[in-house]
Amino acid sequence: MGIRVRRRAEAQWTGPVPTGKGHIRTGSRALDSDYSLRSRESDDAPLNTNPEELIGAGIAGCFAMSVANLLEEGGFADVEVTANAAVLLEQTDAGFRITEISLSVTGSAAALADDDFARIADRAKRTCPVSLALAGTTVTLESTKVVG
Amino acid sequence: MGIRVRRRAEAQWTGPVPTGKGHIRTGSRALDSDYSLRSRESDDAPLNTNPEELIGAGIAGCFAMSVANLLEEGGFADVEVTANAAVLLEQTDAGFRITEISLSVTGSAAALADDDFARIADRAKRTCPVSLALAGTTVTLESTKVVG
Repeated sequence: MGIRVRRRAEAQWTGPVPTGKGHIRTGSRALDSDYSLRSRESDDAPLNTNPEELIGAGIAGCFAMSVANLLEEGGFADVEVTANAAVLLEQTDAGFRITEISLSVTGSAAALADDDFARIADRAKRTCPVSLALAGTTVTLESTKVVG
Repeated sequence: MGIRVRRRAEAQWTGPVPTGKGHIRTGSRALDSDYSLRSRESDDAPLNTNPEELIGAGIAGCFAMSVANLLEEGGFADVEVTANAAVLLEQTDAGFRITEISLSVTGSAAALADDDFARIADRAKRTCPVSLALAGTTVTLESTKVVG
């Protein structure tokens, strides 16, 4: 039988949205942070977490691991992958939407060609389970092979 | 002009997936945690983060705020909302997939009827931006009004 795991998180909100307060924690307790309308929508660098950076963290984590896995399957050693996600939250006529997630990835491995890395990164974007779950938004990808 | 914010996160992976190590951090630094194949797929309670609990945290945070917002718009005071998300990662014939996200929500507010809460929670599930982005998986909802 295949792997089947459930991962959990909890969020609490008290009061009206503009002045109220929230808290989010994950099952592992690696995240245990307040959040607020300000941490979500203000243009300042957020001091607390917000749902969009967590979605970015989820896809970046899944995608980086998937790229590493495909490099390994391709026979490449000395794998290093760094993935960044920028999640765009926009107020549209229909309401708030996550209109785009921009992934950028840099990586290195022994004897890895630029073309191979671009192809592998693209495949990881199309197959990692978090990317697939995020089918309701547009995920873009920029990949750069660096010298390891 | 409407609100338009970008939220960021970064993930790094080094080495082969079974024995390598990863790290995820968010723009706010509220999350700054190692992750690994074990924290992702092992049946033990995870000590480190994993992409799936972060997706759960993102949807729970967005959904709790959205329920609070709709209660407020409905004229209800003294709003308290707690949302849990359980994200199911399964190995299928086609590869790993997030096959289901189960949301459960409890809430209270002054003069709130059971029916009103169920209706509002359902609307929040259908309209919160993170739910909408997660169109590639099945999101289920169970709602319970509690006495505040």
